[in-house]
Amino acid sequence: MEGHAKGEALKRLSIAQGHLEKVKHMIVDEDYCPDVIHQSRAVQAALKKVDEIILHGHLHSCVLKDIHSPDGKSEELVDEIVDLFRKES
Amino acid sequence: MEGHAKGEALKRLSIAQGHLEKVKHMIVDEDYCPDVIHQSRAVQAALKKVDEIILHGHLHSCVLKDIHSPDGKSEELVDEIVDLFRKES
Amino acid sequence: MEGHAKGEALKRLSIAQGHLEKVKHMIVDEDYCPDVIHQSRAVQAALKKVDEIILHGHLHSCVLKDIHSPDGKSEELVDEIVDLFRKES
Amino acid sequence: MEGHAKGEALKRLSIAQGHLEKVKHMIVDEDYCPDVIHQSRAVQAALKKVDEIILHGHLHSCVLKDIHSPDGKSEELVDEIVDLFRKES
Repeated sequence: MEGHAKGEALKRLSIAQGHLEKVKHMIVDEDYCPDVIHQSRAVQAALKKVDEIILHGHLHSCVLKDIHSPDGKSEELVDEIVDLFRKES
Repeated sequence: MEGHAKGEALKRLSIAQGHLEKVKHMIVDEDYCPDVIHQSRAVQAALKKVDEIILHGHLHSCVLKDIHSPDGKSEELVDEIVDLFRKES
Repeated sequence: MEGHAKGEALKRLSIAQGHLEKVKHMIVDEDYCPDVIHQSRAVQAALKKVDEIILHGHLHSCVLKDIHSPDGKSEELVDEIVDLFRKES
Repeated sequence: MEGHAKGEALKRLSIAQGHLEKVKHMIVDEDYCPDVIHQSRAVQAALKKVDEIILHGHLHSCVLKDIHSPDGKSEELVDEIVDLFRKES
């Protein structure tokens, strides 16, 4: 991953870690359950955003470089992307 | 989309249509609600499988052909893929 | 499910069926792949909305009626709801 | 949330925090992008499991207690559950 995407992903991950710590405190404090779940969902949404940044970097760097290589690697890259798409569902 | 993927996608869509028709009958018949939702989820899972087939075909045909074109089209293709990935979430 | 929710669910299902038919035509016509996937996603979102209507009806009718019954049925109802929640993921 | 569910949720959250820390290291080390996304997905799946535990506790404690109260609170509880279900989609 090139520098800008890497920095952006790490920054967002640190923020997500802070929010996850908050989920923990909410459970310890026995906050209202739907509020805890909403906070947990916000962390999950933040991680999905990080995934997008990583995927974007991947498509740009790895895939653009290798997708026309003659050794069947392009097939593998395409399958990997479809696999990421499937797991998301 | 090349012929095989097209045929596969259409076949699965027809099956999904049959299952969706069944969801309708279950609602008319006032079947047990969680059963109806499970049947509806099965249709959604079937449509996601169709999406994967289409995405696979897209990455193979459109993307492999255009991703190295010099006119900025590769950037657009990458953004489209990340966008599909995001919508899935 | 009471009458209003039933009518609403059936109406939305019919619309979803129409959109699904359109997905099929788009594949036959070899429309641009990301457009086909977006249309398919719209159908899935419509089915999720139907699921919500059904769940809402379920919580109101079945659950409110049975959740305090003494025969362990309430435990079963709670597990079913958590199960629906999990499948969604 | 009663004690057992609380302990279980906190234990799982701590494990998720450890895995999230690993995602960070993988990005710093520039590990292969799809591997990083898979690790991030594992954290999201772990958080969803925590959500289920919290929802289960919520349905048992808050909902079972309040769902038949005469002051319209049951309607609010039902809407909250449907809302959690929707956000999941």
